[in-house]
Amino acid sequence: MHIEVISNVNEAQAERFVHRTAIVIDVLRATSTIVAALEAGAAGILPVETVLEARALQGSGNLIAGERFCRKIPGFDLGNSPDEFSTIPVQGRRIVLTTTNGTRAIHKAMRAENVLAGSINNAAACARAALDLRRDIVLLCAGSHDEFALEDGLCAGLLISELQLLCPAPIEMNDIGSAMLGLYKSTSGSVQELVFASATGKRLCKNGSNRDVERCSKVNISGIVPRMQGDMLVQN
Amino acid sequence: MHIEVISNVNEAQAERFVHRTAIVIDVLRATSTIVAALEAGAAGILPVETVLEARALQGSGNLIAGERFCRKIPGFDLGNSPDEFSTIPVQGRRIVLTTTNGTRAIHKAMRAENVLAGSINNAAACARAALDLRRDIVLLCAGSHDEFALEDGLCAGLLISELQLLCPAPIEMNDIGSAMLGLYKSTSGSVQELVFASATGKRLCKNGSNRDVERCSKVNISGIVPRMQGDMLVQN
Repeated sequence: MHIEVISNVNEAQAERFVHRTAIVIDVLRATSTIVAALEAGAAGILPVETVLEARALQGSGNLIAGERFCRKIPGFDLGNSPDEFSTIPVQGRRIVLTTTNGTRAIHKAMRAENVLAGSINNAAACARAALDLRRDIVLLCAGSHDEFALEDGLCAGLLISELQLLCPAPIEMNDIGSAMLGLYKSTSGSVQELVFASATGKRLCKNGSNRDVERCSKVNISGIVPRMQGDMLVQN
Repeated sequence: MHIEVISNVNEAQAERFVHRTAIVIDVLRATSTIVAALEAGAAGILPVETVLEARALQGSGNLIAGERFCRKIPGFDLGNSPDEFSTIPVQGRRIVLTTTNGTRAIHKAMRAENVLAGSINNAAACARAALDLRRDIVLLCAGSHDEFALEDGLCAGLLISELQLLCPAPIEMNDIGSAMLGLYKSTSGSVQELVFASATGKRLCKNGSNRDVERCSKVNISGIVPRMQGDMLVQN
């Protein structure tokens, strides 16, 4: 099996996804939030790229959620904090989500045969689901504003480590994959410190979202694997 | 002090270099070869982007050197192997060098106030020279065909580690810098295995250049720091 890591959205050319399973990673916070929303009973997550698209879908059973530059968008029902989805009732509702980097990354991956959402929270479950799909895997790190984000790279390394544990065959990977696996191994499984040291982690703490950073850096606390079906992410 | 790591040439926009010291890294093999050439007594290295430019400068005291896709270019005096520079007399000669990724990276960095060539071989000396120049530092990993190369990222991590040892003030860095520092630390100083595991390392071994990979992964064996003066890299 071959794993290709793409270090930020800017490098995600469509042809890299064809015939493959894509795992989109935006640890702070889109893919962590998507896992939390499904965990809280949401029917599905509809990722859209613009605030206008989201607003057009508000009402008729949909809740609209999202952020720009780490902040909730005025008039939206929810922001992009995983904790909100435990406090606001979302059971059975569709969540329309737009974020600065994560939802854009999901759209970039749409040429893949399967699209999953991965995070530090659901890494082991996500690795297992991806293996079951029996395709080569692309790990797309959303990054931040077209640049590499430490927490996403670290999550890619964690996912490769989980895949290695589960897969009996040798796994080949590209150079950035080897680097992220080495980075993950350097943490000896304790990833929280690095997530807090990341540029987005620091920015979120500055905005008072320390709890989100803490929650998003917890390894394998969820068995939920969001998977794209049509235009919506639902529980696999 | 601030250190910014750029993970491949494709991300090297000119404005990122202004008022800074750039260290260009192409471990396999351009910057390792440049260090070896100056160590062997060459007067200077003139990096050019195309084979045609190099040919136009052949003769009149110049030797022309380089590779395309890891192989020596027909009609050239030298390839891009550091070992060649110990066997072919280059004392006092100017070397015109063109390589697939490295010389392109050097040209990309030309807007920097200072341009140095860094490698695993000269990391400590290069870090010291860069600090003496008292500017923020950009580490430009040449990469391979517009993608991240493991050995260049590892060298960036080694350089940051050397800079931290030498610099009394706290060093800030971007996320890819933190990742590369973590990666380097995960090797506990023994980098050779990872260099051999890199895509370019494997390709060179396949072409019979194992000795180059071995030589290029030796940490701090040279005190030579190539520095751009006009259009030529000379000993700092």
